[in-house]
Amino acid sequence: MGEFDLIARHFTRPVRRAALGVGDDCALLAPGPGMQLAISSDMLVEGRHFFADVDPEALGHKALAVNLSDLAACGARPLAFTLALALPRADDAWLAAFARGLFALADAHGCELVGGDTTCGPLNICITIFGEVPAGQALLRSGARPGDDIYVSGTLGDARLALEVLQGQLALPEEVLARARQRLERPTPRVALGQQLHGIASSALDVSDGLLGDLAHILQASGVGACIDTTVTSKLIAISAYTAMAGCQFDAELIRQCTLAGGDDYELAFTAPPALRSAVAGAAQASATPVTRIGTVEAAPGLRLVDGRGQAVANRYASFDHFQ
Amino acid sequence: MGEFDLIARHFTRPVRRAALGVGDDCALLAPGPGMQLAISSDMLVEGRHFFADVDPEALGHKALAVNLSDLAACGARPLAFTLALALPRADDAWLAAFARGLFALADAHGCELVGGDTTCGPLNICITIFGEVPAGQALLRSGARPGDDIYVSGTLGDARLALEVLQGQLALPEEVLARARQRLERPTPRVALGQQLHGIASSALDVSDGLLGDLAHILQASGVGACIDTTVTSKLIAISAYTAMAGCQFDAELIRQCTLAGGDDYELAFTAPPALRSAVAGAAQASATPVTRIGTVEAAPGLRLVDGRGQAVANRYASFDHFQ
Repeated sequence: MGEFDLIARHFTRPVRRAALGVGDDCALLAPGPGMQLAISSDMLVEGRHFFADVDPEALGHKALAVNLSDLAACGARPLAFTLALALPRADDAWLAAFARGLFALADAHGCELVGGDTTCGPLNICITIFGEVPAGQALLRSGARPGDDIYVSGTLGDARLALEVLQGQLALPEEVLARARQRLERPTPRVALGQQLHGIASSALDVSDGLLGDLAHILQASGVGACIDTTVTSKLIAISAYTAMAGCQFDAELIRQCTLAGGDDYELAFTAPPALRSAVAGAAQASATPVTRIGTVEAAPGLRLVDGRGQAVANRYASFDHFQ
Repeated sequence: MGEFDLIARHFTRPVRRAALGVGDDCALLAPGPGMQLAISSDMLVEGRHFFADVDPEALGHKALAVNLSDLAACGARPLAFTLALALPRADDAWLAAFARGLFALADAHGCELVGGDTTCGPLNICITIFGEVPAGQALLRSGARPGDDIYVSGTLGDARLALEVLQGQLALPEEVLARARQRLERPTPRVALGQQLHGIASSALDVSDGLLGDLAHILQASGVGACIDTTVTSKLIAISAYTAMAGCQFDAELIRQCTLAGGDDYELAFTAPPALRSAVAGAAQASATPVTRIGTVEAAPGLRLVDGRGQAVANRYASFDHFQ
């Protein structure tokens, strides 16, 4: 099957919102009146972002989810995306499953495929996503102020725990692994929460390389520091509820490693003034997304960790870097 | 050097037109009032789109040029682009040269880098580009009508000739190869011409996979056929002026192969009614871009080739397909 047949079979669908979709030299798109276009691009590479034998349907989900997560971090409403795909061969069954996972998530967010590219090469998936956000209202990394609360959505660390098992570093009971693996392979982008945080969050980003490393981007962009309660963050690992049941116990240090520097969480970390705590709770409720207060923005630069009794915890949790 | 240092060193520059550039979860961009955003994405893979030992500065140029060429084909004005890059290693000198070639062309077109991604993996370059075009005025593939003239800009076939030499299939005098290689490695996107063709061209696209194969997309989208004069197209190979001088002669069949199905030309092919011939000439002059009339749109489907005396020429010129 040729390149154009492949595109037609798996990736050509009529567009509803865009003025022009797949099939011409360019797609045509316009944000609504008074709206800015939020744009983000992510590239996923075999052996680095996913294993060669990953379920292609889950991969289709994840490739779009990581981009939706960037829109969520800006508070943007998803509109459309382009998909560039390098494939070692034209495998019809693989592509059908990949497209199924991709479009299921795209449809759930009203986000349509408008263009892209396919070529032959080592498996590589590059999605560029477009959302719209009222002009001047995008959530940025630079607005955190001393005294602001620090929040994180959902759960942390499960994806990393699953990765440790898949890499043979750790063993987990099957039902616990299944749950953690779900978080690794099918992350939930917090799109609804992001849109609820306009006018509430002073800064936001999505946690993809590990909580502390990503939080450092907010602190740097805002020129502030922070104190994080690790007793709270350690409870954010979703599978903790299952571990007692499954009769397995985790080392506290492993849990801190996974929750603070795990990576692949795709949760939102954000800051908001204490006066807006009920507004944050309202945003969490309106978006049906759990949100936990994990610390405080401080004027002094740097990231300090404490336990539940205020005792200092050594920070040895490095963020993920693709070149280190 | 880590991922974030790499981004900062080579790819972070202040934005002028976009509301927000590199460094947050999303870039922010809005087309002007009454404008649509034209979007295109191209992925370049080592060993397929370029050789491993290609000059990185030329590669930076070409990676953006192929995307600018898509904007040109829509008649859009370039605004911004994202760059996603998978690199086998963080090679500072390579990246500096790549960035130099990329930004030289970007600056020449007022097109700014607003975001992207870097990761470790087999070399892969994915650029998504954004331009603006007055709403409803984008040049599409679907507007060709029987009786329209068919045009192509610039020259055809030189890139393919250079590729044949680099692959060891053919020998060329050094000065001739240098000229052909320039066309392969540093194509000129016809951005100015595309913008001059609003209201003149009935259809347009950029020639990237070979003239006949690409032209077939216009014919299919427009529901028409065409007749092409191969005596005219065979003269469009730029180096023909040099071949006599260099004392080398080419087989007519090789020239037809290169000009009709060469690929990597990045010229515009477009159609326009005969009544607008002087308008086409004006657009060519205003954009300082040579344009040649090469044939006619016909009602009967299919692509017919003739020579200068109207004699049929067999069409055995297949377009490039990444999976065949």
